Amino acid sequence: MFSRETYIKKRKSFIRALNERGISRGTFILLANGASPRNYQSNCYPFRQDSSWLYLVGTGLADCGYALDIESGRSYLYADEQSLDDVIWTGSPPSLHELAYSIGVEGVWPLSALQSLVAERLAKKEPLFILPPYRCEQQARLAELFGVAPSLQVEALGRFIDPRVILAFVSAREIKDAEEIDEIERAVTATKTVHEELLYSFEPGWTEKAAADYVLSRASAMGFELSFATIATCRGAVLHNSPTAYAATAEDTFLLDAGLEMPSGYAGDLTTTFPVGPRFGAQARAIYEVLYQAFGVAAATLAPGVRFLDVHTQASLTIADGLKSLGLMRGDPHDAVHEGAHALFFPHGLGHQIGLDVHDMEGLGEDYVGYGDELRRSDQFGLRSLRLAKTLKPGMVHSVEPGIYFIPQLFRKWRAERICQDLLNYDIIERWMSVGGMRIEEDWCITESGARRLGPAFDKTVEALERARSVQ
Amino acid sequence: MFSRETYIKKRKSFIRALNERGISRGTFILLANGASPRNYQSNCYPFRQDSSWLYLVGTGLADCGYALDIESGRSYLYADEQSLDDVIWTGSPPSLHELAYSIGVEGVWPLSALQSLVAERLAKKEPLFILPPYRCEQQARLAELFGVAPSLQVEALGRFIDPRVILAFVSAREIKDAEEIDEIERAVTATKTVHEELLYSFEPGWTEKAAADYVLSRASAMGFELSFATIATCRGAVLHNSPTAYAATAEDTFLLDAGLEMPSGYAGDLTTTFPVGPRFGAQARAIYEVLYQAFGVAAATLAPGVRFLDVHTQASLTIADGLKSLGLMRGDPHDAVHEGAHALFFPHGLGHQIGLDVHDMEGLGEDYVGYGDELRRSDQFGLRSLRLAKTLKPGMVHSVEPGIYFIPQLFRKWRAERICQDLLNYDIIERWMSVGGMRIEEDWCITESGARRLGPAFDKTVEALERARSVQ
Repeated sequence: MFSRETYIKKRKSFIRALNERGISRGTFILLANGASPRNYQSNCYPFRQDSSWLYLVGTGLADCGYALDIESGRSYLYADEQSLDDVIWTGSPPSLHELAYSIGVEGVWPLSALQSLVAERLAKKEPLFILPPYRCEQQARLAELFGVAPSLQVEALGRFIDPRVILAFVSAREIKDAEEIDEIERAVTATKTVHEELLYSFEPGWTEKAAADYVLSRASAMGFELSFATIATCRGAVLHNSPTAYAATAEDTFLLDAGLEMPSGYAGDLTTTFPVGPRFGAQARAIYEVLYQAFGVAAATLAPGVRFLDVHTQASLTIADGLKSLGLMRGDPHDAVHEGAHALFFPHGLGHQIGLDVHDMEGLGEDYVGYGDELRRSDQFGLRSLRLAKTLKPGMVHSVEPGIYFIPQLFRKWRAERICQDLLNYDIIERWMSVGGMRIEEDWCITESGARRLGPAFDKTVEALERARSVQ
Repeated sequence: MFSRETYIKKRKSFIRALNERGISRGTFILLANGASPRNYQSNCYPFRQDSSWLYLVGTGLADCGYALDIESGRSYLYADEQSLDDVIWTGSPPSLHELAYSIGVEGVWPLSALQSLVAERLAKKEPLFILPPYRCEQQARLAELFGVAPSLQVEALGRFIDPRVILAFVSAREIKDAEEIDEIERAVTATKTVHEELLYSFEPGWTEKAAADYVLSRASAMGFELSFATIATCRGAVLHNSPTAYAATAEDTFLLDAGLEMPSGYAGDLTTTFPVGPRFGAQARAIYEVLYQAFGVAAATLAPGVRFLDVHTQASLTIADGLKSLGLMRGDPHDAVHEGAHALFFPHGLGHQIGLDVHDMEGLGEDYVGYGDELRRSDQFGLRSLRLAKTLKPGMVHSVEPGIYFIPQLFRKWRAERICQDLLNYDIIERWMSVGGMRIEEDWCITESGARRLGPAFDKTVEALERARSVQ
């Protein structure tokens, strides 16, 4: 996808990061993804290459392997030529040595050579490193490669998974270069197009499922994949609601959280909340105003050197303050945020990194990606769901997505257990429960001097949304 | 999806089929599918329930279990209630006992009870039966359930996979009732709509990828899934070509093999081959005429009591005869088909069963489904790719899909090895290679007296296709 120079550069920055963490020799092994069976072996889901592979190796070829010698920086692709039967059914493959050249590796060897390489390194007790597998098939293939087959033992593979390697890889992958930011921005721009199309097309009577189908339909027509399962719902208070057959009424508030993915794998991720009728109800409008303010405060706080944990806190304070002014909360907003009272309304984190994964690198472990060795994750309700906390650096790309929700089950439990009752006006909150849930999400890139919102402008003020919903 | 009576009836016909094969006691265990990770653990492909589960148990609930006592016919669902965290993120689940009632099982127990049940049956050495797993995760879950964890051993699970159980299950599942045929017909009808839309919309300059995106886009807009990865190609001679960035020219012939899947899981599967310009080229037209004739002969041969192997042979004879009249083959067509010479052009089988899987029940083993204990699969090139061979029965639903291809790699190999050189005019064939590949596919249901093509009429004569391509 990118030039061979780009991949060579990426491998160099990974090796530099490994060296900084005290790893200067050994072999780093990566496997490409294989097919993922849907309803029988040969009927597979659309192939998705592994994101770490896309980052470091850079080819869409399935079922192959890669080895990087950390000391010399030399790396090889391992792949098999196709049989005549394969050619009849799936066509001539790309020439492997041309492919190897295009991604800047030293050469290409048969897959069996990777098995020999690993066996030899194991025999000589030389260091071998892998990344944690997230697919069962991948785990089984690694187990076989490392001679722990046929058992499927996380423990047996665990000794090849070195936290320093993960942290080094994250520190390389999390800084996006100009080409990567461009890819993400194209994904965000296309995502915005689909959100705006739905904003203008949606009508009372549409089901949630129809809205989700619309998003997939438009994404496909534009040549994009979805970066995650679309959330399209009148019940925004269910955070990851699967679209249902519920038909929206003019009184509902609709929440669309959907992202498109570039053919290269880079993702966009936006959330838009809008009234199904031409106007928000009075309570929904008031809550949306608080939310929009929190979104603005968070966005204005973004800069290199700032901890995202503190941005989350600023957004939380704004929400607590706003809800206090509406009478739903009371006391000092700082106390409320410290006690976690605001998490009754905002039980998730403010954002996550975005890149080749929509929750970038989440397969490597959320804490490595969002906290590193700088911070430890809180176990307080709400805060424990914060995916990104660490200090922002130029080149990082992430979402900002505050939300305010009225979740019946959570409300009932907290009220019954009198949680933070000095900070929450439960009797008043009860009268606002029908507001449901709202979220605003946009994607940002940290620059040398501040931060830049990705994609074209998308006015999400109450006025702009109501205008859009009125011109049907 | 269907009524509880329907599921009760299906279980009874499965038990009857088991009894006929000498199995009258023991416990049959089935696991629902779980989520399938795409690019990290929690970013999953769209959930697809297992087809055997949909057939026998009938709920879309993920990660649960089912046990059927073969002697008493009593069966239970095994599923866990959701935690508050689950409810906050994914909403209130359906009430499990209401669900259990709606699918006609005796009751619902926690998932751990299934573990106890299996342990108890194992301890008492009572018979336990499972179906072969086709997903790695499923295999791992079964291994754990059957106490062969943490090893991933096909062999260890193998002793619970009884061919008689598979054959009994196939004999129940392959006879579709009126409700099922109705579901399949709705899938076929929607599939036909999309094929016709593409037939009228496609223009020179469109890429193969754009055509595949168009199909997904239209399917999604109609609320359907795809039943398999769309084949949309100007290079029909690559049987399962993945759509590329190649832009079609007016001289190309386009092949679309695409199917839609109902929300219930039932599939459609059609192939349409058409000229990109307003007319087929002279050679392409001549080949298409032969193909259309083979399609017609096959369709006219379908009836209960007829072996699909013989239908395949009739289609093969028609192809050999037609290619002889064009000068590409020579000698007696019966000899050619006996020797497999026609497989140079028609290297795959005439069709496959269709139902909850587009290749119905393929996950249980192709030979169980297509050959049963009646026939053995040939190892002759071409014939060995025939998925369905056995005797047709009323209620069976299957595709009819003859194809004629000019595959360069296969041609070069056969010519070099002088394969069937008394039956093939290689010098003449060489001048027809640019025809590429063509296939016609429609879906049929076997009735008491004959067979019925599913879905509305779809005229695939040269004249009709050229007419469609001329009215742009």
